[in-house]
Amino acid sequence: METPDKSSTAIAFVYRGTLVHSTPKEALQILEDALLGVDSEGKIAFIGEGNESQKLSEVFRFSPSAVTQLDQHEFLMPGMIDTHIHASQYSYAGTALDMPLLQWLNNYTFPVESQFKDLEFANKVYTQVVKRTLRNGTTTACYFATIHTDAALLLGQITNDFGQRALVGKVCMDRNDAVQHYRETSQESQDETNRFIKELLNKKYPLVKPVVTPRFAPSCTEALLAQLGATAKNNNLHIQSHISENLEEIKLVKELFPKSESYSDVYHKCNLLTDKTVMAHGCHLSDKELALFRETGAALSHCPNSNFSLCSGLLNVRNVLNHKVKLGLGTDVAGGYSSSMLDAVRRTLDASKVLTIQDREHKTLTFEEVFRLATLGGSQGETQT
Amino acid sequence: METPDKSSTAIAFVYRGTLVHSTPKEALQILEDALLGVDSEGKIAFIGEGNESQKLSEVFRFSPSAVTQLDQHEFLMPGMIDTHIHASQYSYAGTALDMPLLQWLNNYTFPVESQFKDLEFANKVYTQVVKRTLRNGTTTACYFATIHTDAALLLGQITNDFGQRALVGKVCMDRNDAVQHYRETSQESQDETNRFIKELLNKKYPLVKPVVTPRFAPSCTEALLAQLGATAKNNNLHIQSHISENLEEIKLVKELFPKSESYSDVYHKCNLLTDKTVMAHGCHLSDKELALFRETGAALSHCPNSNFSLCSGLLNVRNVLNHKVKLGLGTDVAGGYSSSMLDAVRRTLDASKVLTIQDREHKTLTFEEVFRLATLGGSQGETQT
Ligand SMILES: [Zn+2]
Ligand SMILES: [Zn+2]
Repeated sequence: METPDKSSTAIAFVYRGTLVHSTPKEALQILEDALLGVDSEGKIAFIGEGNESQKLSEVFRFSPSAVTQLDQHEFLMPGMIDTHIHASQYSYAGTALDMPLLQWLNNYTFPVESQFKDLEFANKVYTQVVKRTLRNGTTTACYFATIHTDAALLLGQITNDFGQRALVGKVCMDRNDAVQHYRETSQESQDETNRFIKELLNKKYPLVKPVVTPRFAPSCTEALLAQLGATAKNNNLHIQSHISENLEEIKLVKELFPKSESYSDVYHKCNLLTDKTVMAHGCHLSDKELALFRETGAALSHCPNSNFSLCSGLLNVRNVLNHKVKLGLGTDVAGGYSSSMLDAVRRTLDASKVLTIQDREHKTLTFEEVFRLATLGGSQGETQT
Repeated sequence: METPDKSSTAIAFVYRGTLVHSTPKEALQILEDALLGVDSEGKIAFIGEGNESQKLSEVFRFSPSAVTQLDQHEFLMPGMIDTHIHASQYSYAGTALDMPLLQWLNNYTFPVESQFKDLEFANKVYTQVVKRTLRNGTTTACYFATIHTDAALLLGQITNDFGQRALVGKVCMDRNDAVQHYRETSQESQDETNRFIKELLNKKYPLVKPVVTPRFAPSCTEALLAQLGATAKNNNLHIQSHISENLEEIKLVKELFPKSESYSDVYHKCNLLTDKTVMAHGCHLSDKELALFRETGAALSHCPNSNFSLCSGLLNVRNVLNHKVKLGLGTDVAGGYSSSMLDAVRRTLDASKVLTIQDREHKTLTFEEVFRLATLGGSQGETQT
């Protein structure tokens, strides 16, 4: 493997203007009149000050006249990371938000998801969602597909073709009393997950990886959850699921898993809480459960539009950050009606402000902090307070 | 006065397609394949069914070939009514939302508003806000200007020129300890209000009227409030102000008006609660105060984006409607960061859903009801439950 020295890296683009980004120490850093160079592989080659133009052009061998000057109101920022989005639910985003989670799943979600066995339909919706999220500034997404392996593989292909970084999950669910035609046997779920992982990895897409995706505890038997935990471990894969979204769901989990001491414990016992896990929501997690997240390195995806829209609850993000649990933002399309991460940013501020309305001692999130959650938070976990 | 018979009205436009609107009985009525005729004065001449085209064309004398067919995803709906917006604050919309109301006024609002003595500056901002709100679908707006009479008259002229229906208010405030250069004497406030009303009415703008506008009780002496109440009564004018937005403000009003039994009572004593009054916010009004609103016919403007953004409180709209108090929606730019009434619609749903999260017995507003609040509610008061 070659390590090219700086001067031999071919520079493809150089921009001069305002850069905006986050660091662990500084939630929002604004670099005015900065110089950004991108190499031919799309990687950032250098960041300097505008007045270093001459010097940098000599080191990196680009013509100072090839620098693109940004306009006064233009700026560059990191791509946003949607840490939780159901690609398959994009087809009905913005509709059908008139009932709470469990009824909403049975009435709207499962019937629609079952249509994705039709690859033509899947191709249409998945192409739309990838194009739209890219246009919205989502350069990385953690997608839930459906139970259909081939459609999920197609989603992987589409994200690769459009150049979006993605974790793609074939959804696993071997329990579904309400919509019985939309579920798998435990064996199918396990076999198809293995096939999905193997075939997606074989594609060697540079930006697209499989993620082990039990829908959520109420849709899975403990046996399946344990199998999936083992699969993730054996293949060193990411894991995504839902947790503690609404009170009715938590009650159901208590009934279905009477031996577990908490919702988090259900997943933990099955080795599904790891430092490569992203769990959506967590609105009602106890401090003890947050400590378990911290301990295992598992992250939360905060999806405030969904939490408002389905009247699920309000996650106290400040409390999560105080527990040093990693946290990113998600749109949770179609529980959230917007596929825009800027909407997730706005809704995160709203949710935090509601907590301040309820309790004047609550330390409201700043917009700088929320900007960091939407970018750096989604990428490497948010552990600063 | 002539009453033209139907057949003599000149028809300027006829559209065929989907119409969406509200009635007191039906929150959202969707008329598919409808026919809408508009006369040369811009008034709706008829609404019929698509298959009545031939018959209507004979009665109203238009050529069936002149009918404009709407596309499959197009529809016509009533213009939206922004019942509370500070035209002068548009210049910093989307910034400076990091402190509660009273500090926000002193630190951001009053310094900016004081700049509107410069008519060139006023012209620039007021032109922007009218163009932008029209583009956003706001066909009617209740504007707060600033204390500057000539700038407020200019706003009236601009709304007239762009064809937006508007109530325009020169702001009155004879009390401002924090920013002493931004206030008037009681006499100035009174005299300038009279001049404003007289000059604006003299323009005979068909769609633009003056509205008596005490900023809010903490900015006005009781003497001024009483004068303004009399002015509104003598000229049969609309009145707009703010009420019960946040708890600190309510406490201040109690201190400033120790003899009044409630915030509403301060205004009521000064004849400022009438059936032509719109009061913004009312987040913390007691049921007794709502009864007073109902009795006097005064309306509320619900501005949820502002209430979230400044952490002011959450208005229980369902409770207001149950009290049969008229209610419309407002953007409250720049306490609210968005000048779009569609944002006000979304935020109204969010606020109602938060109340459901807090109390499962709360009857969440439906999107149909909120659509009605944004259109019919703003125009004639929302008294249905
Ligand atoms: Zn989800
Ligand atoms: Zn206001």
